[in-house]
Amino acid sequence: MKVVVVYDVSVERINDVRKVLKQYLSWVQNSAFEGELSEGMLEELRSRLYEVIDPAVDSIIVYTVSNPRWMDRRIWGIEKGSTENIL
Amino acid sequence: MKVVVVYDVSVERINDVRKVLKQYLSWVQNSAFEGELSEGMLEELRSRLYEVIDPAVDSIIVYTVSNPRWMDRRIWGIEKGSTENIL
Repeated sequence: MKVVVVYDVSVERINDVRKVLKQYLSWVQNSAFEGELSEGMLEELRSRLYEVIDPAVDSIIVYTVSNPRWMDRRIWGIEKGSTENIL
Repeated sequence: MKVVVVYDVSVERINDVRKVLKQYLSWVQNSAFEGELSEGMLEELRSRLYEVIDPAVDSIIVYTVSNPRWMDRRIWGIEKGSTENIL
C-alpha cells in the first residue's frame, strides 16, 4: 500500500527518526517520507520508530491508501525529494 | 475530497504559509495540515499560497483522495493537532 509519513519530533531525535524512515521509505520533504509498504513492513517500521521516539512528546502521522491510484499528489513550488536523496 | 498538505518553506515565510493554510484546513502537525476541500477551494488555496511562497525555493506537497474512506490514518506517539488549535 501507499504510505505517507509526516513527523513532528524533538530536535534531538530527528536524526534517529530519519535514519529509520530512510530504510523503509523515500525522503520527499523536510518532515515527510513516502513509499510503498506491506502491512507487515509498516508494523516493523512502527516498532523501529517506537525504539527511538518519545511517544509522550513526539508525533508521527501515517496516511495509508491500499490502492496507490486512489491518491493523487501535486507539488506547489519545487520538488525537494528525489531518488538521489534516498540513502 | 480529503486533502493532506505538507510544506517545507523558508523560515521567513512559514507564518504566512500557515496563516493561509489555517483558513482552509486544520493544523495537525508542525508541517502538516489536513481537511476536506472541493477542487475549487483547492485551486483557490493554490493561488493564495503562490502569493506568499517563493516557488523556486519552497515546496508544498498536496495529497488528495476523492473518497475520504480510501485513506487510513494512524498516529504513532501523540496526537498534536486538535480542533482547539485551529484558528
